[in-house]
Order: sequence, then C-alpha cells, then structure tokens
Amino acid sequence: MGKQVDAVTWYQGQIQETRVHLAMEIPFTVYYNERETVTLLCSPQELDELAIGFLVGEGLLKQPQEIKGLVVDTARGLAWVSAEPDRPLAKEAIGRRFVTSGCGSGTGYYSLADAVLSAKVQTSLVLLPRQVNALLSKMQNLAQQYQVTRGIHGAGLCSPDQVEIFREDIGRHNAVDKILGYCFIKEIKPEDKVLAVTGRISSEIMLKAAKMSIPVLLSRSVPTDMAVIFAEELGITIIGAARAGKFIVYSHRERVALP
Amino acid sequence: MGKQVDAVTWYQGQIQETRVHLAMEIPFTVYYNERETVTLLCSPQELDELAIGFLVGEGLLKQPQEIKGLVVDTARGLAWVSAEPDRPLAKEAIGRRFVTSGCGSGTGYYSLADAVLSAKVQTSLVLLPRQVNALLSKMQNLAQQYQVTRGIHGAGLCSPDQVEIFREDIGRHNAVDKILGYCFIKEIKPEDKVLAVTGRISSEIMLKAAKMSIPVLLSRSVPTDMAVIFAEELGITIIGAARAGKFIVYSHRERVALP
Repeated sequence: MGKQVDAVTWYQGQIQETRVHLAMEIPFTVYYNERETVTLLCSPQELDELAIGFLVGEGLLKQPQEIKGLVVDTARGLAWVSAEPDRPLAKEAIGRRFVTSGCGSGTGYYSLADAVLSAKVQTSLVLLPRQVNALLSKMQNLAQQYQVTRGIHGAGLCSPDQVEIFREDIGRHNAVDKILGYCFIKEIKPEDKVLAVTGRISSEIMLKAAKMSIPVLLSRSVPTDMAVIFAEELGITIIGAARAGKFIVYSHRERVALP
Repeated sequence: MGKQVDAVTWYQGQIQETRVHLAMEIPFTVYYNERETVTLLCSPQELDELAIGFLVGEGLLKQPQEIKGLVVDTARGLAWVSAEPDRPLAKEAIGRRFVTSGCGSGTGYYSLADAVLSAKVQTSLVLLPRQVNALLSKMQNLAQQYQVTRGIHGAGLCSPDQVEIFREDIGRHNAVDKILGYCFIKEIKPEDKVLAVTGRISSEIMLKAAKMSIPVLLSRSVPTDMAVIFAEELGITIIGAARAGKFIVYSHRERVALP
C-alpha cells in the first residue's frame, strides 16, 4: 500500500533517516466508445468503478445495461468503456468536470443544478446524533491508506449504523466517483444512505450526492456557501465540522433527531 | 469575508442555533482573445491574478508584455484577457488542467514534465530548520479566511524569513495560480523563494512550482509519489508533514541546513 521512499525527518533538533510511505498517484485515461474522454490523476485502485462513476457523472451512462464492455489496464492507466447508446461527448458536459475545483461555464453549471432539481431527494431517513459520531469513528478506522500515507481522501456510503462501502483516492472527487461507480454497477439505490467524506463539501461533491439521490452528506470538514445553497434547494442535509462529540447541521436539519 | 448562514450546532448533547461563516464559491469563466477557455470554481478574490495565472500555466501567456487587455467582472464571475500573439487553445494543453485532480492524457502529462525539465531549478537558497517552522507559523497567522470559515486553502510565496505574498482560495490549485499570476504581472522571478501551501503536494502543484522555477515547496501536508519523483528530476526540494517542531524532507535535502 503506497510507495516507499527514503527521506529525512527533522524533529526537535534531531535528524533521522526515514523510509516513508507515499500515496501513489497515476494518470488514468478513460475512453468512451473509442473516444478519449478524460485523464484523471488518481490512486490506482478500483479503476473500473472510477471510470464508470466518471461517465455516470457526465451523463454518458444512465443505466447499467448500457455497458457493453469494460477493459481496465491498471499498469498503463487506461480504461475502455463501450456502451449503447453512444452519446455525444457534449463539450459543456465534459467541460463541467474539466476544472481543478470543478465545473463548466457558469450557465452550464446552474443548468446542471436545475436538472438535478427535478429529482428532489425524498427519504424517511433520520439520524441520531450518536449515529453521526459513530459513523465518523468507523470511517477513520477504515481509512487504511490514510493511516499509512496521509494525503489521501476517503468516501463512505453508510447506513445509519454502518459504513457499507469505503473508497480512498488522492482526489476528493475520485473517491466519491468510485462510490458512484460501485452503486451504478451493483444497481444499488442509495436513497436511504449517508455519503460521508473526509474532505470539504464543495458544490460539486454536493451535486454528485444529488445525482445519486443521497439525502445526507457528512464531513469532518465544512461546506462552501454554494454547496449549502444547492443543498437547501435539492433537499439534502449537510452535516459538517463533525468531530468528537460535535457537528453542525447546515441544511435540512429535519433529518437529524436533535434533542 | 465569507457568507453567513443559519445552522444548528450539536455539542455534547446540547444544540445551539448558530450563525456560521462559509467560504464563498463562485464559477469564474476566463475568455482568452474572445474564446471561452475554462470555468474555475474559486473564491471571489484576486480574480485578475487567477485568470492570468491560469493562462500562464496553460502556456497561453509567456511574457507580461503580451497582455493587451484585462477586464474582470467580479459580480458575474467573468474575465476577458486579450493578448498578442494569439496562441491556439491546444486541446491537450487545456485538457491537462481539465481534470478534478489534474492533467490531460498520460502522454501529454509526461511531456509537460519533460518540457519543464529543460529548465532545471538552480539556486543557492538554503533554509535553516527554524526558518521552516517560523514560516509555517507565519502562514497560519495570515490565513484570515481560513480562521473564519475553515475549508479554504492558502499559498504563500516566502523568503527564508517572511511570507511575502499570501493568497487563499477554496481550490488548492487556484491559490497557487493566484501566486503565479501575481508574480507574472509584477515581473517577480521567484527563483530564490519558497512556495508554502496548506494542502497536499500533488504532481500538479509540484509542476506549477517548477514552472515558476521555485526551488522549495513546503507544506503541512504530504506529497504523492509522483510529486516526489518529479521533484527529484526537476531539482526541487519538497518539505512536507511540517508541524510544530517537525518536518520531513522528501527530495533535494541539500537546501535544508540539517545538523
């Protein structure tokens, strides 16, 4: 897990030769029906889920039955996905993803929010505060690569009492896309689940949750203003700043059983 | 600074109505000679530096004299940059940036590294351990938005004893691009400077430092394996995992005066 390199540690005036574990980073190029679609910088695990999750996020796959072939070459960092129907790589659809911290043109971006709006999240899920705190501890225990290498993000799909699927990646978005890909391939409908992430909740992470109809987003970190605005509109509960015995509910607080 | 919203805080069994500050996130579209080039999700400050820094990073601007006009509409999140010569928006050059955590095609990516390689970083800069620790404290004091909102990244261009320029953004890459844009506009050659960042050191952040010929990268967080491989080749010192009284030197340790 990770890669080892020689380094030198300085600690309180002393130096020590150290062998450290680093998180691996690879370029991973996804071809959709023979067309180069994107290259992601990512961790080299679950590349099948990442490829599918990315294409689902871009609207190029809508049903699992559409996937006619999936070949992943882990060593070379390549995936070929063949699918029917063969949807056009809409420039703006791809462009939306094609930015360091997100999205396409301003207009395109808000249209995306509108599109998702039509499927406002419906659920009877209600979390107890002790479940929120317990999920965070469980996420931390599962973060194996993080514990060895640090510098890696985790995402978990959770029932109120368990982290059911956990994925790690050097990219915040990739970790969530792996969850998205897993759910799509396995035909899991996460409409009564919590998406727990280790990183910040930006508008993009929020819109991915909306795309999956996930009603609750949970993070140790905080949301941006745009994420909260969209979450209010789309019916999603954001629980952030969650650490031992504390959290903040930023939107749709009706899904947390507060005293 | 930031935006205030109503939220509810749960802390050790008690709830409290809270007014919280959130980091602002806006979509920001950059036009280069009338052509839409990219939309970034970013913090709404120093948009002129971000636009220029992005275009420099993409190789569309090479000398400050090339900029013939720069108009930023902060309210609508738009920038128009006119420049001569009018370089083509190479699909692969733009594509490289167009990914959540990075880059274009694998090939394109490594070509970029090769291109930078020709200008291997040369400097006589040597840092003392106490300077490393002092720079980190100074960065922390400057992180005003972070202190109010959390969930925001900082980047600082530093001499051994001072943080000379400090920029914040919700995106790790954007904060560094703002520094890059500032240096380009002001014609500052940061060849004897340290680039301090709050986030992880991915290969992209490393290549941005190389593009600026910055010899030392410093972070509280850790590098990826690819960042360290490139740093070794390009002559850049990576100091990571830097916290009170401790740090790790991952590459080119000759620039840290270790006992």
